[in-house]
Amino acid sequence: MKKISTESYKGVRDFYPEDMSVQNFIFKKMRETAESFGYSEYSASILEPTELYQAKSGEELVSEQTYSFKDRGDRDVTLRPEMTPTLARMVAGKKRELSFPLRWYSIPNIFRYEQPQRGRLREHWQLNVDIFGVESNEAEKEMLSLAHSLMKNFGAKESDFVIKINDRRIMNALYEKYKLTEEEVVQVSKALDKKSKNPIEVFKATLEGIFKINKHVEEFLETIESNQKLIKTLGEDNPLVKNLMDLIDGLASVGVTNVLFDSTIVRGLDYYTGIVFEIFDTDPKNKRALFGGGRYDDLLSIFGNEKVSAVGFGAGDVTIKDFLETHGLLPAYTSTTNLYLGVIDDAFPTAQTLADSLRAIGVNVAVDYTGKNVGDQIKKATNDHIPFLAIIGKKEIDSKKLKIKNLATREELEFGFDEIEKIAKMLV
Amino acid sequence: MKKISTESYKGVRDFYPEDMSVQNFIFKKMRETAESFGYSEYSASILEPTELYQAKSGEELVSEQTYSFKDRGDRDVTLRPEMTPTLARMVAGKKRELSFPLRWYSIPNIFRYEQPQRGRLREHWQLNVDIFGVESNEAEKEMLSLAHSLMKNFGAKESDFVIKINDRRIMNALYEKYKLTEEEVVQVSKALDKKSKNPIEVFKATLEGIFKINKHVEEFLETIESNQKLIKTLGEDNPLVKNLMDLIDGLASVGVTNVLFDSTIVRGLDYYTGIVFEIFDTDPKNKRALFGGGRYDDLLSIFGNEKVSAVGFGAGDVTIKDFLETHGLLPAYTSTTNLYLGVIDDAFPTAQTLADSLRAIGVNVAVDYTGKNVGDQIKKATNDHIPFLAIIGKKEIDSKKLKIKNLATREELEFGFDEIEKIAKMLV
Repeated sequence: MKKISTESYKGVRDFYPEDMSVQNFIFKKMRETAESFGYSEYSASILEPTELYQAKSGEELVSEQTYSFKDRGDRDVTLRPEMTPTLARMVAGKKRELSFPLRWYSIPNIFRYEQPQRGRLREHWQLNVDIFGVESNEAEKEMLSLAHSLMKNFGAKESDFVIKINDRRIMNALYEKYKLTEEEVVQVSKALDKKSKNPIEVFKATLEGIFKINKHVEEFLETIESNQKLIKTLGEDNPLVKNLMDLIDGLASVGVTNVLFDSTIVRGLDYYTGIVFEIFDTDPKNKRALFGGGRYDDLLSIFGNEKVSAVGFGAGDVTIKDFLETHGLLPAYTSTTNLYLGVIDDAFPTAQTLADSLRAIGVNVAVDYTGKNVGDQIKKATNDHIPFLAIIGKKEIDSKKLKIKNLATREELEFGFDEIEKIAKMLV
Repeated sequence: MKKISTESYKGVRDFYPEDMSVQNFIFKKMRETAESFGYSEYSASILEPTELYQAKSGEELVSEQTYSFKDRGDRDVTLRPEMTPTLARMVAGKKRELSFPLRWYSIPNIFRYEQPQRGRLREHWQLNVDIFGVESNEAEKEMLSLAHSLMKNFGAKESDFVIKINDRRIMNALYEKYKLTEEEVVQVSKALDKKSKNPIEVFKATLEGIFKINKHVEEFLETIESNQKLIKTLGEDNPLVKNLMDLIDGLASVGVTNVLFDSTIVRGLDYYTGIVFEIFDTDPKNKRALFGGGRYDDLLSIFGNEKVSAVGFGAGDVTIKDFLETHGLLPAYTSTTNLYLGVIDDAFPTAQTLADSLRAIGVNVAVDYTGKNVGDQIKKATNDHIPFLAIIGKKEIDSKKLKIKNLATREELEFGFDEIEKIAKMLV
């Protein structure tokens, strides 16, 4: 028989218990933060009709980076490359029954066929938080407060990250000045989105190809590099500029003070219509955006629905994990098992009965069936990072008492078999 | 622009918040039960190299029921149709580093291209619980205790379900009596697995095609229908029969008394090598197995590894949910949001500050930004099944007090803005 490889598929991860515990830590913080702002969890299948992505997700994503195939019934299927189109489909599908504003979150896995590299894998999980039906910038304010809380709940200090915001409509106003065509606007947006990843010359060369007039390129570069210049160009009374400044002030008043206006933030996806934002690590070694989002008021129209205001963001597990590792914010691994019950002298029935009583009041107990010596059983508990250990044998059965040892501090306490509640208090 | 459908892909589910809350209830009970027996969570990608399933998963499953395709790099990829091969791959891949026995669980989603029907969908989630490295039937005993606890933790009574067990080796001993070839054994197993789904004549006709001698068919049918007959045929001292009877007695001694020996239980998958079991609803209206599993000691050999004993089971969310619905065991929906904070008189900043203080001590708070009248805001909280409501306006700002209302009992209590801890106690 041919020997099968134990490698996973390229660019995806296996989660052994210690890896899973990191995932669960990240997911728990995401969940708690979203729920603390009143968001409810939703979910959907990773399988979606391919047409869902053809309208709005951006051409590169759909034609080069999706996992798409025909099923056995000749339907075109795609593994979701992002969650927002699915969310929009679900909202559009029950628009009349749902009570707006909606506050929804999900932590889906999403798939992109890319060359795997640091921070980018072919499958990753992504917290998606979205609010539907709030037109005012209270929606952006809440979304950015939530993103800020997420980072704080992970243990980050405000100085560890910065929130950069922009407004696509501000950029459009600027493009109008240079009379760019719709296609040229898309090209400039794409170039802006990739600006920080390349030397400035690459960006400049792209602009020169689009603007034709070299003076305009210089002027445009100066404008986007300086907020003062940009505000002057558009006028301080410009309602878009005022809206953005109001948002920054409003956030400061609720304690979110690390927000910067940055006109190079545009976001890659086609469906954003207003404010966009990205959260960055302030550590210069890690220049990629941690996560981002924005306002997308038109997405439901692809289902023939009327417009619904929407603001949301997506935060991936891979970049978050890199951030937490860099800043030393990942907790040490401990097993979810509280007590390892070693067994000698074939005392299995007693051990099982005791284990069952403890389980009934919320203690997680593993019983050893190996019949190995005590030393090996202690070693097993230690290897598995289980915090407490007890051994049951003839002596314990006779005395109806057992000693519970804290494997980290080496403290040991003795309990009667009937002191289940007291044991539970020590362990959980 | 072409209007896109809001339907999901065929045979999969969208989980709106109320549906998700059912999923989360089921997953929570699964998680708690597995962890209470000392099992640690693992996970992996849904994408696997297709070759992983070609050795052991059963031909029908691989060639007719998988989602398989070529990726953009011409690799053969399959969406996992079950978790056990992935688990075996992971264990084989780190066999030298892992400390045995392993107790692992996971709740993966798995994919089968089938005609959707009650209890069967193209994507479902499945609790997988497995123990590696225990040769004695203590492994089966623990696994069946765990399955039994799972049902009890869902709120089922012992009379609501029955655990049917068999041993593939017992069946093999029986087949030897009739000198069946390996291929004929597979055919009889398949027929047994489907026996309960068809009229008995279908099963009989299949047997007649295999056994040739009609007397043997009658004898075989009688033997599998009666445990006494089967035990007599194999001899009471047969070690396999003794092992099975020991297991049933051992389970009874730890309070698991609804276990029956049933020689028609064989399980569809090719990799089982010993004891197999299935859990059935005792309600005659729901005759399909709820879930099942067994011992598979040879699966690691497909990776060129030496044998490792393994026992496990898989329990799907769809059949469990049907069971819980039938028996009235699903809890009523409540939002994860504890408090809905209605806002009038543009009191947004006060509402946000109060909400943030409550969030900081673990209360989930949604703030209303609509500016609608109080009646509409109360209606929104009620629609969303949020248990508590408070309204903040000019009056509350002036008095620095707010009233919190329990929307179910209509009780109302007044608190000062500074009594955050007292408010939290009422809400969480």
